[in-house]
Order: sequence, then structure tokens, then C-alpha cells
Amino acid sequence: MKLDDIKKLQQKKYRNEFQHFLVEGEHLVLELQKAAQHNPALNQSELLVTEAYENWASPFKTTLISSKQMAQVSDTKTPQGILAVTPFFSLAQTAASQERAIYLHEIQDPGNLGTILRSLAWFGGFRCLLSAGSVDPYNTKVVRASMGAIFHVPLELDVDIHSLGTRFHAIACLDMQGKPLRDAQFRQCDCYVFGNEARGVPHEDLATLKAQAFTIPGSGAIESLNLASAVNLCVYELTR
Amino acid sequence: MKLDDIKKLQQKKYRNEFQHFLVEGEHLVLELQKAAQHNPALNQSELLVTEAYENWASPFKTTLISSKQMAQVSDTKTPQGILAVTPFFSLAQTAASQERAIYLHEIQDPGNLGTILRSLAWFGGFRCLLSAGSVDPYNTKVVRASMGAIFHVPLELDVDIHSLGTRFHAIACLDMQGKPLRDAQFRQCDCYVFGNEARGVPHEDLATLKAQAFTIPGSGAIESLNLASAVNLCVYELTR
Repeated sequence: MKLDDIKKLQQKKYRNEFQHFLVEGEHLVLELQKAAQHNPALNQSELLVTEAYENWASPFKTTLISSKQMAQVSDTKTPQGILAVTPFFSLAQTAASQERAIYLHEIQDPGNLGTILRSLAWFGGFRCLLSAGSVDPYNTKVVRASMGAIFHVPLELDVDIHSLGTRFHAIACLDMQGKPLRDAQFRQCDCYVFGNEARGVPHEDLATLKAQAFTIPGSGAIESLNLASAVNLCVYELTR
Repeated sequence: MKLDDIKKLQQKKYRNEFQHFLVEGEHLVLELQKAAQHNPALNQSELLVTEAYENWASPFKTTLISSKQMAQVSDTKTPQGILAVTPFFSLAQTAASQERAIYLHEIQDPGNLGTILRSLAWFGGFRCLLSAGSVDPYNTKVVRASMGAIFHVPLELDVDIHSLGTRFHAIACLDMQGKPLRDAQFRQCDCYVFGNEARGVPHEDLATLKAQAFTIPGSGAIESLNLASAVNLCVYELTR
């Protein structure tokens, strides 16, 4: 891919057009290379390096560029000097019966989504569904916060919340009034719905889905947990 | 306090000198006002507002300033127009026997610390100890990420890791090899040690403390959980 086009991958519009995204920095590229061992699609990644990484061992097609060129394509202020251009990929399905879905409705914060992907990859056995209007998971900030987890979690984009009712047999959501997470019914659901950081999920949608409400019991000192923390606790409880 | 001095509170050095910190934005000021009902020290806060917040109801001494002045004292690019200057405060002790300590060794990321404080406040019954070299909890980014939790969690700064051994009877840490969190012994500790995002805690310090190792069982797909996620899960397990 030409440098001019690679630079454009900082924007969602062009990521979708070219079906590629940026993976920047030593740690993320290492995670990508490890993941590529089990996912041939990722082997189509191309690597751009500056002199500092001239001797970097990689199975990918590698191009040496100048620091000035790197600064142009990179999203960061002080680029490390190593950046991969990676094709959109799909992940092998887990047996559907062993998999649970985490549905995120209009999640906005890239750090939250990255942290959630990291928890889903850590525990395993989860698929991440994103509504339209959510932050793009191929956004460089999400990729960075995911610390490589993005290469391991099956993702679906633009999933309509109304489609969940026909696809899943039991849907759970978090609410102030609900059964505690440790209730046995929590584990019997196959889809878990979480809302936008500020607005949550519209109540009428939850009612239509007949979502069962669960609560993370708290002291009452503050209004809410961080969204990524809430997802994280649910995922832990499900794999405990 | 003079505007020139208030502006300086963006820096740790001056926060320590003046023993005050900044609480910016409508949501945080509301949380501060709620917390002040139970903590008279917080009532010594002073409020600065622009015309947009001229009619804001507050028990604090309130000063109207211009948008230009607000831009000078604010940490954000587009200030909302409401900012409190709050004295350092202490929180009433929980009975020590009912309280557990979370020790953070050289934590760096303000978002992580804010998120951790939010979890500790949510569940209640925790004290947060920070080592020297940790991010300052009165940093505006931490205060913002805490969403007001900072007003509810007892904090101790510059706590030496070696002092934990005499102060606590059983210390826990996370490690790749350890008993699972749900093991009964995990709850029997009274201090939980977590390390820097990249480097963890020095192994020799953990050995000296005779820290018991526990593990958050995972799939093995990625190397680590986010630090705030790990603390969050431990705190959940302890209050489950």
C-alpha cells in the first residue's frame, strides 16, 4: 500500500474503504506476529520500519522508511519506528454453544473498548457485538488499549439491538434494581447488553428484548462503576 | 485563593504547597457538594463560575469570573465554566477490622488510578495506599476519571512497601502462578499489592513481605489484564 494511503488509515472512512488498519509500536506488532501464527489472514500484514528496527525479525513483508515518512503515517507524536498495516480479518468460530455474546450499545470511549477487549481475550469464550454509533474497534486508540487483544476476540459491527431477540435465547442487562450477579440465572444467559457510558441502553429496547436485570451490589457512595469495569466483573463472574 | 495561585494547582508541587486541588466540571462539582454534606472539610471548597453557571446552587463561597479567566485556570481545552478549589481532606476511619488495604506500587496511568478509586468507592470498605513515584491522585485527570470517587476513598501517599510487613498480617499479590482468586485464603488477607502497569512489583519485595500469590485464571491468549481491571476483579471477589 502507498504511504499516502497508509496515512489515511487513521480515519475510519478509509479503514473501511481499504479494509486495513494500523498496528503501531513494538509490543503490538509482537502480539500481531504471535496471533498471525494461528491466523493466516494476519500474515498478509505489511510492516514499515525505520532504521531503529532494521533488524526486526518478522514474517511480514517489510519496508524500510525514513523517520520523516514514519512521522507522516504514524498516529503518535513520537513514533517508535515500527508500524504494521493489517487487513481486516475474521476469527475461527468457537462452538456457538460454548460462546457468550457481549453487546455494547453506542460505547464511546476508545480506552473502555480496548480494556473490554482485553478482558474478553483474557477470559476467552466471548464474542463482542457493537451497535452502530459505537467507537470503531480499529481506531488506533482502541487497538493500543487492547494491547493485542483485538487479534483474539471475534467482533461484529453495526449489530442492531433489535436483532438480539431472535438470535439469543436469554438476554441480561445491568440495572440498579436486579438480582445480584452471583445469582445462578446470570450464567444461564447467552447475551449480555451494556449501554453507552453516559446514557445506558434505552429502557424500551430492554423491555422489548425481555432482558433480565442484574445488579453489581455496591456501597451506594457513588452513582456508577466505569463501563469497562462493569463488563469486566460480569465476564469474571461468568468464567468463575 | 488568587487566580494566579489557582492556576498553579495544575502542578503537583503547588498542590502540595497550597494543600488544595482542582475539581472541574458540573458532574464532579455536584459529587463534591454531595460528599461535603458528610465531610465538613470539603465545605471549605471555593467555587469559580462563569456566567453560564451564575445561578448554580452551592453551599460553597462562589466567585463569578470571566470565560477568559476560566480558560486560564482550567486544565481543559473547552472549560464548562464551573470549577472548585478544594482543600486536601481526610476521611473518617472505617473500623480497621472491617477495612482492607489496596497498595499500588508506582502506578503511572491517571485513568487507571481514577478507575480503581471508582471501584473502591463503589464496593466500599477499602483504603488506597500509594507508593512514592505513583501518579498523584489529586492530578486533574485522576480526579476526573474517578468521577467523584476520590471524595470517598481513604488515601495514603508515599507509603513505603517495606512498611506493609509490620502493619498488616497477611499480604496478597497477583502472579501467573498462584491460587485462584476464589480460594478462601484470598479473603483472609488484609493487604493486596499491585504493581506498576509495565514492571509489576519487584519479586524481592514480595518475598520479603511473604506475600501470598493468587491468579486470575485466564485463557492464555494474551499476556495480561489491564491493571485497573485486575484490581477491580479482586475487589469484587472480596465483596462477593
